[in-house]
Amino acid sequence: MTESKKKLKELGNKIFNEFKTGKNPTIEIPIRSLKNVEYIPEKGLITLGGETSKRFFFNIAHTKKFMQTLMVAKMAKKLVEENATTSIRDLFYSLKIPIPGMKDNIFNDQKESDPIIEDLEVSLDLLREEMNLRADKKGTMIGDLVIEDAGDEIDLRKQGSGGWSIPSKVESDVIKFKEHSAKFILFVEKSAIWERLNEDKVWKKLNCIMITGKGQPSRGIRRLLHRMRYELNLPVIVFNDADPWGYYIHSVIKQGSINLAFLSQKVGVPDAKYLGLTTKDMKKFGISRNVSEPLSPVDIKRAKELLKYKWFQTKDWQEEITHMLKEGRKLEMEALSNKGISYVSEEYLPQKVSEKDFLI
Amino acid sequence: MTESKKKLKELGNKIFNEFKTGKNPTIEIPIRSLKNVEYIPEKGLITLGGETSKRFFFNIAHTKKFMQTLMVAKMAKKLVEENATTSIRDLFYSLKIPIPGMKDNIFNDQKESDPIIEDLEVSLDLLREEMNLRADKKGTMIGDLVIEDAGDEIDLRKQGSGGWSIPSKVESDVIKFKEHSAKFILFVEKSAIWERLNEDKVWKKLNCIMITGKGQPSRGIRRLLHRMRYELNLPVIVFNDADPWGYYIHSVIKQGSINLAFLSQKVGVPDAKYLGLTTKDMKKFGISRNVSEPLSPVDIKRAKELLKYKWFQTKDWQEEITHMLKEGRKLEMEALSNKGISYVSEEYLPQKVSEKDFLI
Repeated sequence: MTESKKKLKELGNKIFNEFKTGKNPTIEIPIRSLKNVEYIPEKGLITLGGETSKRFFFNIAHTKKFMQTLMVAKMAKKLVEENATTSIRDLFYSLKIPIPGMKDNIFNDQKESDPIIEDLEVSLDLLREEMNLRADKKGTMIGDLVIEDAGDEIDLRKQGSGGWSIPSKVESDVIKFKEHSAKFILFVEKSAIWERLNEDKVWKKLNCIMITGKGQPSRGIRRLLHRMRYELNLPVIVFNDADPWGYYIHSVIKQGSINLAFLSQKVGVPDAKYLGLTTKDMKKFGISRNVSEPLSPVDIKRAKELLKYKWFQTKDWQEEITHMLKEGRKLEMEALSNKGISYVSEEYLPQKVSEKDFLI
Repeated sequence: MTESKKKLKELGNKIFNEFKTGKNPTIEIPIRSLKNVEYIPEKGLITLGGETSKRFFFNIAHTKKFMQTLMVAKMAKKLVEENATTSIRDLFYSLKIPIPGMKDNIFNDQKESDPIIEDLEVSLDLLREEMNLRADKKGTMIGDLVIEDAGDEIDLRKQGSGGWSIPSKVESDVIKFKEHSAKFILFVEKSAIWERLNEDKVWKKLNCIMITGKGQPSRGIRRLLHRMRYELNLPVIVFNDADPWGYYIHSVIKQGSINLAFLSQKVGVPDAKYLGLTTKDMKKFGISRNVSEPLSPVDIKRAKELLKYKWFQTKDWQEEITHMLKEGRKLEMEALSNKGISYVSEEYLPQKVSEKDFLI
């Protein structure tokens, strides 16, 4: 039996026994609000604290949510048993049906069902993906790795200019790692740069696996990075824009985020390294001031917020963000093209990697 | 020599000769504004009319744009010669450099360089992709087709749960079609539904190729649909939400759009068929009214606009849109899950396809 099925069955049995023995059935759910979120320096992760709340069946304020939680759990158990996945939107529509004997629907809006799914995730310590629930897929991967995906062997060294499209569920029952001789994993914020790097076969020259997801990576991408970090024992190196948003994306990959703190243990990569861009790269690589942009007021506000976050309290990051604010400039990855279209592949990246010029 | 290289060289030679013979060098550019856009019923395409404008070198109002056009053409020729692609943002940064001998930059903003690229496209009747210029990649494909992508053979019948990620440039020098026994191509608006269909191996059961692109398809997806329609001689069938936006996405795939009318000949699929969802499907398939949504005022306004477009003047479309407005309801693809998570794969799609229940 899978862990998911076991945990879902245990929940059902517990509730059933409470009913049977005349107890007030209850589900215990760790609290996900800010007051219960903390950064644990030893782990390098933003995680949930120990506070929990209880959802009771015999409590008028709780009954509806109690019923909704069990209906979602029932649906998840069915999905896991049938080995089928469905999207969180499909799940909502599946349960937009009347409560038996009543006119009211179980759910009327996806805004009601999504938080219940998160409740179950934290309560059972299971990702929704482990319960076969999907969101939109996002991202592409290529490089020095052979995988098995739903029974098909896919050689990511032979995926052309397009690459392998990352599914929304990347758990080990579907995605298996077969063989590789990669030395690291390169996360690239922008797909246009990823396409340039792939065209220049950078992953072949530097022996790496390259992954992109258009901006903020999806849960699927983060989970895949986490799995490759620990199952393949490969370092994760991040390549983003030199602006507060690029830095924040890096921190989400590394430590997790406040909103999804309950995921961090399963998707975080606390020792991810930041390759660039940095505003210090401008001088080091002689990048024309012409192609950098002035920081906007919003950029400045965001940069100052980052400076204060506990997980940005390293010498490297304090120096970089202070330098950015002092210069008043930011730099996009595409700006490297100003020095030639393959400059990023032939000069910038190889030098950064060989010098291990990373922010820690 | 490729057609792109030939056309770009011809442009250069023409300008050079005009300089040499003392003429006022000029570039002729078809006008892209609404007044020069028309729907041609015989072709089933929204295309540009015959009006053109001329850009002169010896005209103070034109000189800067004339220079910019030639600089972009020069860059494109270099890309084509070197067999390298770059993104339109990279192109902008490559040309964010001072005009020789002056302080002004060739381009200061991508908003200046993007329209110049379109000028070149219409002027030379070349897609920007044919000039090796890329935008963001988008979309995924799987199914009964073997392709060659940048020299790698990729069997789209063995691409697991993820699929092949569609690159931004899908021209025949990079993407080649090798073998297939598919009967049609299915475009699916939403990637979550595409994942469900792929999990149920619908492409295997119905012998098709399945493509998705999250909402409005990118140029790359449209170009690929066009190429497969004509090179593989396969019909294109579209599967979207039953709302004005889903209908409009279908019309863009089919006839093209007003804004990008100059592309229609190279990306349009005038005989694409619309499979569903339709609001009439609700009754036919006994879909609970519960999971349909009321039309919003914006939906109603948009539906009424569609009713008037020349390319929606078919009996099928007039009936469907009128029916939608009369019912006052719309329906998302995910709503089919209300009848079971595999209902879409096992009942809805096979029945629609076997009955050829399409809107024309």
